[in-house]
Parts: sequence; C-alpha cells; structure tokens
Amino acid sequence: MADARSELASPELIDLRTDTVTRPTPGMREAMAAAEVGDDVYGEDPTVTALEAEVAALFGHEAALFAPSGSMANQIALQLHVPPGDELLCDADAHVVTYEVGAAAAYGGISSRTWPAVGAELDPDVVAGMIRPDGYFAVPTRAIAVEQTHNRGGGGVIPLPTLRRMREVADEHGVALHCDGARIWHAHVADGVPLAGYGVLFDTLSVCLSKGLGAPVGSLIVGSAEKIARARFLRKRMGGGMRQVGILAAAGRYALAHHVARLADDHVKAARLAEAVAPHGVLASVVRTNIVPLDLTKHPLDAHALAAAARAEGLLISVLGPRTARLVTHLDVTDAQIDRAATILNTALRA
Amino acid sequence: MADARSELASPELIDLRTDTVTRPTPGMREAMAAAEVGDDVYGEDPTVTALEAEVAALFGHEAALFAPSGSMANQIALQLHVPPGDELLCDADAHVVTYEVGAAAAYGGISSRTWPAVGAELDPDVVAGMIRPDGYFAVPTRAIAVEQTHNRGGGGVIPLPTLRRMREVADEHGVALHCDGARIWHAHVADGVPLAGYGVLFDTLSVCLSKGLGAPVGSLIVGSAEKIARARFLRKRMGGGMRQVGILAAAGRYALAHHVARLADDHVKAARLAEAVAPHGVLASVVRTNIVPLDLTKHPLDAHALAAAARAEGLLISVLGPRTARLVTHLDVTDAQIDRAATILNTALRA
Amino acid sequence: MADARSELASPELIDLRTDTVTRPTPGMREAMAAAEVGDDVYGEDPTVTALEAEVAALFGHEAALFAPSGSMANQIALQLHVPPGDELLCDADAHVVTYEVGAAAAYGGISSRTWPAVGAELDPDVVAGMIRPDGYFAVPTRAIAVEQTHNRGGGGVIPLPTLRRMREVADEHGVALHCDGARIWHAHVADGVPLAGYGVLFDTLSVCLSKGLGAPVGSLIVGSAEKIARARFLRKRMGGGMRQVGILAAAGRYALAHHVARLADDHVKAARLAEAVAPHGVLASVVRTNIVPLDLTKHPLDAHALAAAARAEGLLISVLGPRTARLVTHLDVTDAQIDRAATILNTALRA
Amino acid sequence: MADARSELASPELIDLRTDTVTRPTPGMREAMAAAEVGDDVYGEDPTVTALEAEVAALFGHEAALFAPSGSMANQIALQLHVPPGDELLCDADAHVVTYEVGAAAAYGGISSRTWPAVGAELDPDVVAGMIRPDGYFAVPTRAIAVEQTHNRGGGGVIPLPTLRRMREVADEHGVALHCDGARIWHAHVADGVPLAGYGVLFDTLSVCLSKGLGAPVGSLIVGSAEKIARARFLRKRMGGGMRQVGILAAAGRYALAHHVARLADDHVKAARLAEAVAPHGVLASVVRTNIVPLDLTKHPLDAHALAAAARAEGLLISVLGPRTARLVTHLDVTDAQIDRAATILNTALRA
Repeated sequence: MADARSELASPELIDLRTDTVTRPTPGMREAMAAAEVGDDVYGEDPTVTALEAEVAALFGHEAALFAPSGSMANQIALQLHVPPGDELLCDADAHVVTYEVGAAAAYGGISSRTWPAVGAELDPDVVAGMIRPDGYFAVPTRAIAVEQTHNRGGGGVIPLPTLRRMREVADEHGVALHCDGARIWHAHVADGVPLAGYGVLFDTLSVCLSKGLGAPVGSLIVGSAEKIARARFLRKRMGGGMRQVGILAAAGRYALAHHVARLADDHVKAARLAEAVAPHGVLASVVRTNIVPLDLTKHPLDAHALAAAARAEGLLISVLGPRTARLVTHLDVTDAQIDRAATILNTALRA
Repeated sequence: MADARSELASPELIDLRTDTVTRPTPGMREAMAAAEVGDDVYGEDPTVTALEAEVAALFGHEAALFAPSGSMANQIALQLHVPPGDELLCDADAHVVTYEVGAAAAYGGISSRTWPAVGAELDPDVVAGMIRPDGYFAVPTRAIAVEQTHNRGGGGVIPLPTLRRMREVADEHGVALHCDGARIWHAHVADGVPLAGYGVLFDTLSVCLSKGLGAPVGSLIVGSAEKIARARFLRKRMGGGMRQVGILAAAGRYALAHHVARLADDHVKAARLAEAVAPHGVLASVVRTNIVPLDLTKHPLDAHALAAAARAEGLLISVLGPRTARLVTHLDVTDAQIDRAATILNTALRA
Repeated sequence: MADARSELASPELIDLRTDTVTRPTPGMREAMAAAEVGDDVYGEDPTVTALEAEVAALFGHEAALFAPSGSMANQIALQLHVPPGDELLCDADAHVVTYEVGAAAAYGGISSRTWPAVGAELDPDVVAGMIRPDGYFAVPTRAIAVEQTHNRGGGGVIPLPTLRRMREVADEHGVALHCDGARIWHAHVADGVPLAGYGVLFDTLSVCLSKGLGAPVGSLIVGSAEKIARARFLRKRMGGGMRQVGILAAAGRYALAHHVARLADDHVKAARLAEAVAPHGVLASVVRTNIVPLDLTKHPLDAHALAAAARAEGLLISVLGPRTARLVTHLDVTDAQIDRAATILNTALRA
Repeated sequence: MADARSELASPELIDLRTDTVTRPTPGMREAMAAAEVGDDVYGEDPTVTALEAEVAALFGHEAALFAPSGSMANQIALQLHVPPGDELLCDADAHVVTYEVGAAAAYGGISSRTWPAVGAELDPDVVAGMIRPDGYFAVPTRAIAVEQTHNRGGGGVIPLPTLRRMREVADEHGVALHCDGARIWHAHVADGVPLAGYGVLFDTLSVCLSKGLGAPVGSLIVGSAEKIARARFLRKRMGGGMRQVGILAAAGRYALAHHVARLADDHVKAARLAEAVAPHGVLASVVRTNIVPLDLTKHPLDAHALAAAARAEGLLISVLGPRTARLVTHLDVTDAQIDRAATILNTALRA
C-alpha cells in the first residue's frame, strides 16, 4: 500500500505527535467538492444521511449520528446513558474523563468512578465489583465506558473475549456499555475482528473519521434508533447541529472506502519505530497498532528533553507527562520519514 | 446583483423556510477544495486562523474563534460572561433562551430573566431596571444579550443609538453586553452601520457564516484576546474542537468576500414578498431585512393551513406558532421564485 | 390576640426587617424539648412524619416533605417539574429566580423566562402567551411558578379567580403549576380562602414555618405521593436529609396550632404602619398582609438614608434597592413597638 | 463512663445499623430548650456563631460554618475547591462519591477519578500518580478527599504519618486536600491525635455532630475565613440557610462538651462485638473504632439472611452489599444490649 498523499504535508517536518494532523488527500478533496448537500439541522443533507446509514450498518446498529468531534460524540453517548447525578465507570486514563475537559461532569452532571489504568488492560470482574445498584443513598451505576484502541494505553487492543465478558457483566447488572471507538478501526485491522463483531457488544459506540482515517472533521455515535433520536436532540444542545454537513460527510465516506484497510501500513510503521526504540529500554508496552508509547522513567532523558532533541532534527513527538511520550503513525507519514524518525530517536536516546 | 448560484437547488421547490438552507456556490466549493489546512485543535490550521483574524478585524476586536454552530458560539460567549448561578438578561424571544435547547441553563448553569419581546424593540431603560447587583441572597446580573437582527422579531434592526444607550447602561452597572449577531450582516447592510460600529459596542459578538452568507457551516465568537483564549477552552469542552477546519473556513472567507453586499438583494426580495402579503393584513411588522414575519391572528387561515396551502404549490414556509409564520429570503432564491411565491401566497391568503 | 412572647427579643430594637427573625415562644420551646424523635433519613422520626401528614392534609394533597429552608423546598419542587434544559416561567421578581442564589439554573439546569413583575399582579393570559411547546429546537415550558403572598410584590395577594384561571392555562398546555407559598398563610387569613382551596390549584406548593408562623427552621413541599417520594431523593442530593428532625418539626406543629389565625394581628399592625407612611407618598402599594412596601422614588430620602435615620432611633427596616424599602410585621413585634415605629418613620420622612 | 441516656430508646430493639439513630439526651434537650437564638441567615444567631468559633478553634482553623447535614458540608467544601469540569480524586468507596446522591457532579459539575478502596488504606504515592496538571485538553486535578475514619472502610483510621505524606503530595502539586471527617472524633480518640493535629493537614474538613456525638442535626465545614465566607454563599445556594439555628447548635455544643471522650466506650463495645463474630471468619478488618464491618463472602449466610435472623431476635444491623454488612456502636446502646447482640450474632452465624 502506497501512501495516498503527501504533497500538502510540510516536507521538512515529520509529524508523529498524533494521527489527527492528517490532511485530506486529493481524492478526498474531490469528494468534498462534489458533495451533494442540504440542511442537516432539518435532516435534509443526503450525504451525511448516507454516511450515517453506512456507519450504522458497518457496526450492525440501527442508526448513527454525525458529530463535529470525538469528544462531542462521546459526551452525547454518556448523556444518553447516565442522568445527572448517576454514575459512569471507566478506567482512570480513559479519554472520556481525561481529555474531554470535564464535560461529562460539567455539562452532563455525570458522577464517575474509575478503575486503575494499566495500558489497555481490562478486567471485567474488577469492574463488576465496582457497580452500585439503585438505592436511596447511593449513586447508581448506569454505564461503563471502555476505549478501543486505548489512547493513553499505547494503542493497545482489548481482546474480543474480554469485551464479551464485559458485555455479560453489563447485562447482569442492567448497566449500559459504551465504547469510545475513536480508533476502533485499528483494533479491527489488528485483530481481524469485523466491525459488527465489536458493534454487537455495545449499546453505543463513538467512532472517529479524523484520526486514523484521515478525514478533516467528524465522528459518529452509533446505536439504536431510539438512542440516536435522543442523541440528535443532545447534539443540538451541545451546539453540534451544523448545516451543509455533506461537505464533511463526503470526506468521511471517502475515508471509509479508502483508508481503513491501509491502517495495516500504519501498524507496520509503528512496529518499525518500536524496534528502533526498544533497545533503549523506553518502550512502554508492546505495539499493536499505530501508537508507540514511550516510558522514560529509567532513561537519562525526560520527555521534554527527548521531544526537544527530536524537534531539533525535524521530528515532532507528543509529551504526555514528565517521563512519558508518544509516537503515532498515520496517513501522512512516508516510509522514508519513518526511517528518518527511527534514526533521529536512536541518536537522541543513545546520547 | 445576479444570483450567484442555483444549479444545485431543488428546481421544483421554493424554500423560504430559512436562510440556513443555502448550498455552497461553485466558487465557494472551489475555495474549499483548495483550502490549506492543519490541525486546528493545535491551532495549526492557517485558513481558519486567517478567517478568525479577518472577522476580528471587521468588528474591531482583538480576536475571534470559529465554532461549528451559532448556538455554540452564543453559548460559549454566555459562559464567558456568566458563572453558574449568576444571571443573564435578554428578551423573552431571544434565540439564546428559545432555540438553543436550554443549553445556557443545562450546561452553563446560567440563570435568566427576560423582558417582554415586542419585535426587535429594545428599551435600554427597562433593561436597566431589571439589573440586580451582587448580594448575599440575590442572583447578580452578569450579562445582557441582544439580537441583531432579531430572528423571532421579524428580522428587525435595533437602531444604533439604542444600542449605544444599551452599552451605557451596561457600563453603568458593570455588566457585560453580548450580541447574538447571527444576522448582523443584514443590519449592517440595511442601516449602513459599519461592522466595527457595532463591534465596538459589545464585549462579545457571535456572527454566523451559514445563514445569510451562505457558507455550509460555521459561526465565530468575537471579543478580546483574553476572552477568546478562554472561549477556545470552552469550545473544547462543548465538543467543538475540530481538526482540519480550513475546509469550512475557506467557505467562510469566500462568503465574506462575495456575499455580504449582496444581502441588499435579499432585502429587496423580502420587501416584494411583504408587499404581496400586506394587503391581507397578515404582515406582523415592517420588513427591514430578509425576514417576512406573518401574523395570522386575524386571518381565517392559521399558520399550518397557510403552510400546507403553500406547500401544495411548491413553496416552503416556516410555522413558528399556531398563528405565526415566516418567510426568509436568501442566496438560493431567484427573482422568478419570488414572483411565484408572491402569487402562491396571494392566492392562498385570498381563499 | 395578645403577643405570645417577647422576653427574648432585644428590648431596645424594633426589628421590622423581615418575619424570619422571630424567636420561638416558650410554648414552642417546650414542644421542642418534649418532641419524640427518630432518624428521619430512615423515615423514622414520628414528629416530622406527623407534621408532614398534617400539612399535606391542610392543603388537600397526598404527601408533604420537611426541608431545612424555603429555598430548598422551592428548588426541589422546581427540579421535580423541570428537567435540565427545559423551562420555568415566573415573574421577574419571583423569589425562586431572585433570592435563591441561582440554584434553579446552577443545580437544576433549569432555563427560565419571566414576565414583568408589577406587585403581586398576575395575568394568566400573558403567561399563556409565553408557554412554548415541545420541539426539536425550542426549550419546552414545563412549569409555571407563582408566589402567594408575593414577597417583592409587597405582600400582595393573588385573588382566587386569577389563580383558577392560571390553573386552567396550565392544564390547557400540559404544564405544571407550583406555588411558592412561603407566606400562603397570610393570603389564607387575608382573603379567607381555605388552605385546601389553594392547595387544589397547584401541583406542588412550598410553605414555610419559619416566617410568619414563627418556628425556628423549616419549610414543606406539598404534592402527590409520587412527587414527594422523588422530592425525598432530591432533598438528599441537596444535602437536606437531616436526622432527629422531630425537634424542629415539633416547633412547626406548635406554630400551625397557635400561630396561623393570629397573622390577622400582623396584618392590622402592617395597616397601621401603612397609614403612618401613606401621607408621605411613599407607600408602594395597598397593604394586604404583613408587608409594607416603600417606594421612595419621589421622596427626598433614598432607601439607605431612611434606614439609617430609623436605625438611629432603634428601628430596623429592609433596604431592597436604591429607592425601595420594606417593613414587615411579625410575632415578635408588640403594639407599643408599632406605635413607636410609626412615630420614627413619620419623623424621618417629614425631615 | 456510663451511658448518658436510654429512656427514649425503643427498649425492645437493639439498633446497630448506624450511629445517626441516637436521640438527644435529657441534658442535650435542656440545652436546646434554653438556647439563645437569632436569624442565622443574617448571621445573628449567637449560639451557632459560638459553636462555629469553637469548632474552628478545635481544629486550629480560622472559621467554621454550620450545615444541616454532613453531605451538604462535604459538597460545599468540594465546590469550594473544584470549579465545574475540574477534578476531584478520592477512593472508590468514599462517602462523597458513594452516598451523597451524585451531588458533586450533578450540582457541582465536579469530575472525579478514584483509586481502589481497600478498607481505610491510603497510599499517597498512588494518589500522586493520578494527579493531572492544567492543560488545554486535560481535566486538571484541584482537590483530593480522604475520609477519617472511613465509613465503608470499616471505621478504619488513617495513621497520622500517612496523612502528613498526603499533605506533602498535595502541596507538591498545588492541589487542595479535604477531609470528610464525619467521624474524625473517633480517630482522635482511637489514635490520641489532637483534633488540631488533623486540622492543620487539611484545607477544609467536614465534621459531624449527629453521628457519634449524638446531636440531632448538623455538621460543620472548617477552613480559612475566606473559604468559609464563600461556603456561606454556597450554603444558601444549596438551600442550607436556616433561621434560628441556635436550637440545633446548642445540642452540638453540648455534644462537644460531653460526648467526645466517651467515644472510647463505643470503641470498646465495638471490639466486644468484633470478638464475638471473629471466630466465624466474617470480620472484614481489624476494628479500631465504632464500626464492625462484616464480610460474609465465605460464610453460608448472605448479608440479607444474617440481617433477617438478627431482626427476628430484636437486633438491627446494616446490609451494605450482597455479602457485606455492618454493626455500629453508639451513645444509645447499653452494655447489656451489646451482650445480647453478641449472643444473637453468634447464634445466627453458627447456624
């Protein structure tokens, strides 16, 4: 699989900070330019309607809804399941309680308790032990959120049997199960699980078009027709009701058609980077998808120093904490850039 | 001024429901297709950054911020001024408390009191009388919102001297003044007031690209650098942080360059519709901009009946209440369609 | 009716600021000292349970719930009727949006629109015109709140036929009707309307024991068994679940038995004060109950100056605004003090 | 130390469900009956003012504020430290996120992450690892809450050195530290740490008068003068502004004078119960204070069955989960009742 594009990327910088930095390919731009559109607040944009139907079908659900960001998609889903004052369980590193500016509590009034984050590991029985029933005093648990693949968990993939057990636990306790599937495409490609195989396990999923898939903007919430009708209302309240959305949806449809299978390429590139840094003892966990998590706890360089050294050579990486950093491969990184990045990191870490 | 486009509009329907239904023109599509983009969550999208600078300058403010909808732009602005539990004053028909799904209270915890809505009329001294100071018991007033032009107020324009007096009142009481300027472009064209002449009177404004200006998506919040920095944070919390926004911003820049002055054309068309319906005694108020408000209180037809009659002839209008309806002219309506609409309404109202 | 007490009152000060300053009478203290109690969070306090049954019966409702304050009683009632983001209508001077620190919005997420406050006047048809139906865009109106007697409205009494018409309007639109009845006892005494005559008109009422009735602490929410069960839950969330509440409830029961009919005495005293100030042109409205509202707009003294002059002579009054003030009669004011207060005010206003 | 009272207790039932069920003693009732009072919303109640000063001094803080419940005291404290959307860290069994009906999120918009609850154990370094700094994306940690003694943690006492280390961690990260000290009196008695020795370690504490101390109603928030001034405002918003609070405060002052040292007696009684149940392998952890936590995971009886068996013999215990239960000793339990309770439990557990 050749890289679909590169001419718009800044030629002098290798950007491995994250996969949201990808820019639309020529084909995607053509699709946007030709998109048939309408007023989506009135439900009249044919392209976004087609995209929603397409994504719903991929995950074996009745309906889907376009949202301007993954954060909004997640937050709407959480509000669907958890009324103000009731409880969400998730891991302590989950995107929904870490990187969404506290919206679940600030806007949804959602109370949260967390289990300890250890990469993408998930122990459904630990989660089961945290669920609280209804009661006069207590805060009843209404939903559990898992993240596939797990962003702060180094792009780790939760195995299908674990998710199946998680579903059983949710059912036993009458609790909803949401999947923050911003990068579920990567799990699908890495583990060979059909998207519908994941879809069937969750009450709702959020999936993102603008990370690995390379579309400029957009995520979708997937679920039952009833949930999605309510989601449409909440999207309006969140300020996510947009008009001629077909422009963006066309990019999303193009991405679904052309950029899912090619994620395998990103995984291979991440594995090559992992190989390069592993001998320095800084690989935080096995690399399964497009994220290479670095743990610098035992290395002389801290995260800022490594980032600065890389930057000086034209490589951008993400600093997540004083001693943690991250590399992410994506559509806009060429094989040559990966080679160059490996060399830069090697040199910096050896110093 | 000729109509800039029409080939994508449904030829058989005349859509006067609202001006958000416009579809991008070929020139606008070209601009989108060629837009230079980057990751705007990282502040790296050059096109949206240029648009923000441009709009800030137009209104004589330091900064501006792109948002996916007018509702989000307004809600972020209100959250900038009013902490949870404190008070916003606005009229009882204001978009911010009527058509934004209660977000000010639900997400911002903002308490609101309203003065009676009478078209776009604004009496700054009545508003002054409602302002409450800080106090142990009381809910202190933190902001006043006005709407220019006024949507439910029939597209009415608040005169500049009235707004100046409103500013004085706000200053006397140390209260912020926000302008929901979704259609401030129409006021600018109708009254010949420079945009900066409005801008200087408000702490923040929201202005919309996807209503009269015809861009597919987007509004901006305009204000001081400090307020806009905070707005960027709140936009993330609302789920409005998008990635390669330049696609949409390019359409917005095109709209600013090509679709402001031509609003005069929409006003003329609205005036022609007003002339057609006035003899039937159903014109709710003088038409100043692109909205023709209908009051059917004294007419045998109610709003649903009129809409149905119009629909049968291929004309779409908006029903706002049992006896109120609305026509809105915009970029996608031709002169011929206005003639046809006038005939359809005439026939229906005569029956 | 002789004054039931006075020995604990500060002999040198006449306190007409408000009726919440009353101190328990000896009889009330005895009742508290002897109260049978239990843990009310477990529903095991016999005295508060008896009080709740008593108050529910007085208003012809199924159930009632004790709350530590009138504000909490009102806020719980509003939360019962209005989910976050939906709408409450009330007048612009209503206690629920003026003196409860914005709790409706801050904690309940309740959106509010208001009609102009003119004393205790209520025009049900104006209110009807403000009600908004459900809709995708709009904020649906869920409840209307009225205040009887009206605090900022000078203790005015809304006539029963007006309230009946208000009920019809609420029914026609499927909207709940709440009465902030902190001083409904005064309306009952002034207009001779049985409490159940008011009760039947409202979905919920809040009634206060610690204002005119002279108990140290407590209000009740009155409504259907279903609403009150939910109110019990919300009271816990608000932090109003207390333990051996019987101590306070005993005072409330004593107040109901001994201090309702005697409110006529407070009304007479207020009328005497009204007579004293009326010739100075500062009486804001006819005095019907225990509040004497002063409007100093046309008087040389402003509210702070009048309060200072009175204070110098040992009389405390309330300043409500730059030119508005208030006198309130209550259980702890003797006839001699009223005479003295009249003289002090006369002198001050003549100066 | 003899039991101070018992005549009001139901003679036929031994109530070990919790220590909130205590009823005021004759001495306490006398204190309430004689209390000097005023309107505390105006800050004019001398008895509650004295109580607040007393409690502030006990903990070495500038100020304190009376609240109607421990939940309200905690929630106000959390709102003092954490603005909406920002983060609180606590353990997964903490009262503040378990038994306060989700108020922190529902009313305060407070986001929470939790560390695993293991009795009253606290590992400050685990907590340190969870703290998140300010950042554009992230939810910044603003406060940490610990619970002393720990309710669901079986009345366990966190050792002073651990709390000191927790304080250091909070200081290193610029995060506030709150103590839910509803039963801090028990820790003080059990570990011999002066109350001020605890007080100095926390930005705020909540302490309860109506649990072990036996007052009918009331908790206090303790902190700096500035924090308590803001707390007074938030108390009003929560609906906790009460009037002649001196009635309740007098009971609290009596409780402080007479019921602190005697908690040692409750601890001895709890230890006797622990001895009785330990041989059955159901004691969940070492008993340090007045709570005896039962873990029935490995016992044939589940919690409901044990409670039913006990109830049949006149003993009330608390069921916390399917296999967890709790006994709590308090002021209203006599030595004879403890003997009887031990026998009842012994018999039930042997069966």
